Amino acid sequence: MSIDAALRALTPLLGDRLSVSKSDLLAHGQSETHFDVIPPDGVVYPRSAQDVSDIVKICSQHRCPIIGYGAGTSLEGHTLAIQGGIAMDFRDMANVVKINDEDMTVRVGPGITREALNQELRATGLFFPVDPGANASIGGMASTRASGTTAVRYGTMRDNVIGLEVVMADGRIVRTGTGARKSSAGYDLTALLVGSEGTLGLITELTLKLQGQPEGIAAATCAFDTIDAAVEAVTSTIAMGIPMARIEFLDAASVAAVNAHSKADFPETPHLMVEFHGSQTGVAEQAERFGEIAHDSGGSAFDWATNAEDRTRLWQMRHHAYWAILASRPGSSAIVTDVCVPISNLAQAVRDTQDDIEASGLPAPILGHVGDGNFHAILLIDPNSADEKRIAKELSERMAQRALSMGGTITGEHGVGMGKLGYMSSEHGAGWDVMGQIKRALDPHNILNPGKVVQVNG
Amino acid sequence: MSIDAALRALTPLLGDRLSVSKSDLLAHGQSETHFDVIPPDGVVYPRSAQDVSDIVKICSQHRCPIIGYGAGTSLEGHTLAIQGGIAMDFRDMANVVKINDEDMTVRVGPGITREALNQELRATGLFFPVDPGANASIGGMASTRASGTTAVRYGTMRDNVIGLEVVMADGRIVRTGTGARKSSAGYDLTALLVGSEGTLGLITELTLKLQGQPEGIAAATCAFDTIDAAVEAVTSTIAMGIPMARIEFLDAASVAAVNAHSKADFPETPHLMVEFHGSQTGVAEQAERFGEIAHDSGGSAFDWATNAEDRTRLWQMRHHAYWAILASRPGSSAIVTDVCVPISNLAQAVRDTQDDIEASGLPAPILGHVGDGNFHAILLIDPNSADEKRIAKELSERMAQRALSMGGTITGEHGVGMGKLGYMSSEHGAGWDVMGQIKRALDPHNILNPGKVVQVNG
Repeated sequence: MSIDAALRALTPLLGDRLSVSKSDLLAHGQSETHFDVIPPDGVVYPRSAQDVSDIVKICSQHRCPIIGYGAGTSLEGHTLAIQGGIAMDFRDMANVVKINDEDMTVRVGPGITREALNQELRATGLFFPVDPGANASIGGMASTRASGTTAVRYGTMRDNVIGLEVVMADGRIVRTGTGARKSSAGYDLTALLVGSEGTLGLITELTLKLQGQPEGIAAATCAFDTIDAAVEAVTSTIAMGIPMARIEFLDAASVAAVNAHSKADFPETPHLMVEFHGSQTGVAEQAERFGEIAHDSGGSAFDWATNAEDRTRLWQMRHHAYWAILASRPGSSAIVTDVCVPISNLAQAVRDTQDDIEASGLPAPILGHVGDGNFHAILLIDPNSADEKRIAKELSERMAQRALSMGGTITGEHGVGMGKLGYMSSEHGAGWDVMGQIKRALDPHNILNPGKVVQVNG
Repeated sequence: MSIDAALRALTPLLGDRLSVSKSDLLAHGQSETHFDVIPPDGVVYPRSAQDVSDIVKICSQHRCPIIGYGAGTSLEGHTLAIQGGIAMDFRDMANVVKINDEDMTVRVGPGITREALNQELRATGLFFPVDPGANASIGGMASTRASGTTAVRYGTMRDNVIGLEVVMADGRIVRTGTGARKSSAGYDLTALLVGSEGTLGLITELTLKLQGQPEGIAAATCAFDTIDAAVEAVTSTIAMGIPMARIEFLDAASVAAVNAHSKADFPETPHLMVEFHGSQTGVAEQAERFGEIAHDSGGSAFDWATNAEDRTRLWQMRHHAYWAILASRPGSSAIVTDVCVPISNLAQAVRDTQDDIEASGLPAPILGHVGDGNFHAILLIDPNSADEKRIAKELSERMAQRALSMGGTITGEHGVGMGKLGYMSSEHGAGWDVMGQIKRALDPHNILNPGKVVQVNG
């Protein structure tokens, strides 16, 4: 078999950096997803772009699938080895290659995590702003075009990756982008590769844009009586051009779960959590103006967290909301789904989704990055109930279709993986065929994460 | 001949919207470029995406080249019909399709110009920020990934186009992007097409991000003794995180030309022109902090333009600098070239370029969008002197190579066209071959603006 032949050919090259131990295979056959475990046939641990290139050349020769692997935090089954093959784990390529203070950029290996990177940057006064909550690897975040709480201010991975080193399906090592902040020199290969989920190339280095640590930060929570009132406050804030660094929505069920998990005592109604970055006076002005808007929308008085400790606690609660929600139904597992709609349709999209969830009988808190029009439902199911799984999948499908009918997208930040593949044609129409043409041109043997994102027989 | 056959086949479809008049052909065989006129064999004026699709299908059948044409303001010979064929002029697809106030987006036809769009938006309190100076068409700006004076704050066309309708080389009409602000649903076709200079598809509609008109605006000029001092002020401002809306550099020769042309009396030394957008207090604070930085770098006192009329006059001078510079050597023509380097190398890049220009004996003022590390040299030559043309081209080549050696790009915003094609391999290496693979996959008969951006026989 071709995969076996590839494994045999890889052995002399990699020695113990090729693993076929059962525990390794199992660990790489799963991620934070509801899909069943589908292990690869081997796991490789490259140390350099040259390693990656050598491995890819061998795999290409033997038509052996290769699936990039970072921190295993993806949600849609991106890393499952549905056609077998090898997982390429980038844990040994997790270094900071070079910090360029003056240019406010950094070059890193794909395996470094978001938190580790920001730890390394601490002394520089700079930080990397993209924050999906999970401590994902930077390579994985680029591959899924991740974003998160701060995208409303700093953009997504699309906006914060300015260059890549990538190994293509034939083993060529390609550099995209330059050290300059912008360029008009040809096709934007960086943007094409960001979000391609390892189907067009394997990222071996990234150049990232950094931000200066803001002089002033203020964070706050605000309770609302209704979803509409909370969303109205968001849309008014955007219309006024107030530069929020984060603006998160939690529905009443999410707040209840956070209360129980973090021993907090927020009123159990829809909430916004906001943060402002800027100069001290700038932040004070933004906070004041936002306070007025929230008040006009019927929001409660603000609970401001001005010191770093309180802010950290607040955002930890937000980041742990997923675990809090999971714990709110003991023994449950979660199908986490995300959609993104135009801001003008956000209130209706959230309301319709909540009505739909209520009618389904499943517990499914809603929360999200509403400044982008992006929200998640965490569908809590009994893992032994085929019925609940079916109901959850139908809910998730209706969320995707609803987003499309409102001019939105089937996923704002989680990516396609296996979970959203079935809706790609609905979202993109002929554009999905164009993606397939690009895939066939750049990976003619379909060895890079096959079966994900595109269909190759279009 | 195949082009003749295509013209014959197009005639019944288009009637008088197909022109082969000599004046039309000549008008579409040139742009604001130093290249010689190379007219197409016909000019078509489509009115809809369906028109474009029908035309492309006929041209595909007859292997007839098609070159998109907007306002003719491109600088690198993008629109020249080097393999013959038809120019597709989008003047009749210049409408505003829909303004979405609440989402702060607008859908437009490709032929609308930047100024016409902002005129249409005037009543909404919104504006489209990308400003390359020239009154280019929006479709052309997307095709060349244009940017300009405001990119330091609002980004380039890459950041401000959120969706496209495109006709592919086989006539398929494809929509990229959605109405949502972000998406992780597959390959970023929008970003791939922006900057592809009409070689992958013809843009028939664009969805653009808009910005709210800032409450407060302040603009100013500041004189410096040396280039280094001016650039030092720029890099310090960036490091401090002060959000400039524009920050432009003009060298002494540019200022002298502006003085002569606009009857102004700026001291004839290197200058920065800056603008701040925000709340009234925010702008005041930014302006004050920038003033301190400029003073520390040895800048003069500021000349602030706080009312709209003075500001308009100031930026008109900047936008007319090209004409002012052209007029500074009567009878000359200009080779305009642009490069972009990492901010950390900006001072050296500008200084080395100026030394090189001085040694060459050609008059060649330097100016640019220094907040991005992007600058232009306007090389003034006697159009009848082959010698001067050669010297200018050599200077331009050394600028491109210097930018590459400093980690930059051969063009920050003008694009590749014919002028920068020769350096694409140096900038991208194997990445240029990847671009060629994509081109061959999406335009197998090489009918879309052939001979530009990529090489198809890679």
